[in-house]
Amino acid sequence: MASGMTVAVVGATGAAGQATLRILEERKFPVRELRVFASERSVGKTVPFRGEPVRVQKIEPGAFKGVQIAFCSAGSVQSKAYAPMLVRAGAVVIDKSSAFRMDPNCTTIVTVMPLKPLHDAGRLRRVIAVSYQAVSGAGVNGIAELREQTLAWARGETIQPRHFPHPIAFNLIPAIDRFGPDGYTAEEMKLVNETRKILELPGLLISPTTVRVPVFTCHSIAVTAETERKITPAQARELFERFSGLKVWDDPTQERYPMPVEVEGQDDCFVGRIREDLSSPTGLNFWVVGDQLRKGAATNAVQIAELLLG
Amino acid sequence: MASGMTVAVVGATGAAGQATLRILEERKFPVRELRVFASERSVGKTVPFRGEPVRVQKIEPGAFKGVQIAFCSAGSVQSKAYAPMLVRAGAVVIDKSSAFRMDPNCTTIVTVMPLKPLHDAGRLRRVIAVSYQAVSGAGVNGIAELREQTLAWARGETIQPRHFPHPIAFNLIPAIDRFGPDGYTAEEMKLVNETRKILELPGLLISPTTVRVPVFTCHSIAVTAETERKITPAQARELFERFSGLKVWDDPTQERYPMPVEVEGQDDCFVGRIREDLSSPTGLNFWVVGDQLRKGAATNAVQIAELLLG
Repeated sequence: MASGMTVAVVGATGAAGQATLRILEERKFPVRELRVFASERSVGKTVPFRGEPVRVQKIEPGAFKGVQIAFCSAGSVQSKAYAPMLVRAGAVVIDKSSAFRMDPNCTTIVTVMPLKPLHDAGRLRRVIAVSYQAVSGAGVNGIAELREQTLAWARGETIQPRHFPHPIAFNLIPAIDRFGPDGYTAEEMKLVNETRKILELPGLLISPTTVRVPVFTCHSIAVTAETERKITPAQARELFERFSGLKVWDDPTQERYPMPVEVEGQDDCFVGRIREDLSSPTGLNFWVVGDQLRKGAATNAVQIAELLLG
Repeated sequence: MASGMTVAVVGATGAAGQATLRILEERKFPVRELRVFASERSVGKTVPFRGEPVRVQKIEPGAFKGVQIAFCSAGSVQSKAYAPMLVRAGAVVIDKSSAFRMDPNCTTIVTVMPLKPLHDAGRLRRVIAVSYQAVSGAGVNGIAELREQTLAWARGETIQPRHFPHPIAFNLIPAIDRFGPDGYTAEEMKLVNETRKILELPGLLISPTTVRVPVFTCHSIAVTAETERKITPAQARELFERFSGLKVWDDPTQERYPMPVEVEGQDDCFVGRIREDLSSPTGLNFWVVGDQLRKGAATNAVQIAELLLG
């Protein structure tokens, strides 16, 4: 183990793949050999890792031979094709896509961080979650679209939306992913189903609203959470502070609360605006922000690998 | 009446004052004579009205003589000083400031539009309102700040925040106005108190969260509303469609829902994403957007004047 592992990153040129490479570096993950894979059109390009360019390889028979740990963030179609090949080659696959389970949705991960300690202390009964989701949740195309539309605005021009169904610069799109028959989007139902799954609470009442906002990185969620046993704001603050991966930024006198531009690049999630819900006797309101390329995706995947390594 | 009224606009160079002038034009309000007033440093400047420049006058003894209707949007300190002078001069004063009552808050006006028909049909019990508020809610300085910070970003520069406590370009500020001891902001408590007042429901349970977003115009609110009698999404749609000043944009198959860039410049409020609340048996979720310089401020003021004129 000291000499390190053979690690593959599939989808290495995407937003989550690039973040995975940065986080493997930062966390000094024991990588002896790194192989990076992406779609055909990226083959031959390089991505940087520990200051060296690493060439993107073609996925072909034998390419995965000897891989011990693989991070897949290439999308669910690719994961369905490549994960079985990686497993046959003997690799442990940490798959960020929705191919083999419910999507470990990046908004859900951020939302669940404060819900877990609250539930352990007071048993969750009902959650109303309203999101403010960054364009990076839609990958590099989402980031490029906000950037291009904003630069066009600065030049006095307009640009037709390509990646999102509507303009995103200086706008809000209150719908992410396709609609189901009940008027909820797939993104909203992921938030319901994944939260229930992660917290092991299949009957938890959850009301989701997901909205795309003109922010580059970090998802923010306004949460109203009702528990069976009342948790005061002071108790919640203490529970959150003690929970690994969660930090409290909550000082109104200093205008201190989590904001996307400050949370960007952080591995932890940040919670603030912790206050009693004025509309229920055992409710709490709070605001949680997480860098969904890190905690919401790549950091979480590397943390899983670290747990596997013991 | 056919010959028109003598109308004063106090605070005519501010965002709400300028919108009032535009709306008086558009709605063909019977203005025979217009007098515009603003702070000392704007005296002598002109503002356009019906294609003509109108000179900003100094507020001095006698300036209000003969004024029949005055629109005040100069701030509460100014309103406290000038409204009594206007009343003594015989004018009806429509005051947008918080000087003489609870502030007729622009977010509240947009939120209340769908709540009123819901309450009339099913009696409201509890409301959870989470806002996405445009910079124009903070007046012309707010608009200038988003504009300047975004242009600086396009040039690769950064600009220190001046009007808002933190950067607003590509960011979210989950706090508007000063904090109270319970962790709620003044903006959030306005949403509670004004909604109760307008709906004449002093005991209505309301949970507010207000957030500033990098959008120029239009406030958006994600609402969860529980009623005593169950209202289905189909019934709500019908109630909203019949309610004057409210329009329904809600067609998932066409990616049709209200968004700030499309609602900007409209006098009505627009509601969409109407669906059952998954977390309560009589709850509804929806998304409402209004141009808060128009319905939230100036249009509402002119509509009050129209009602007064009969």
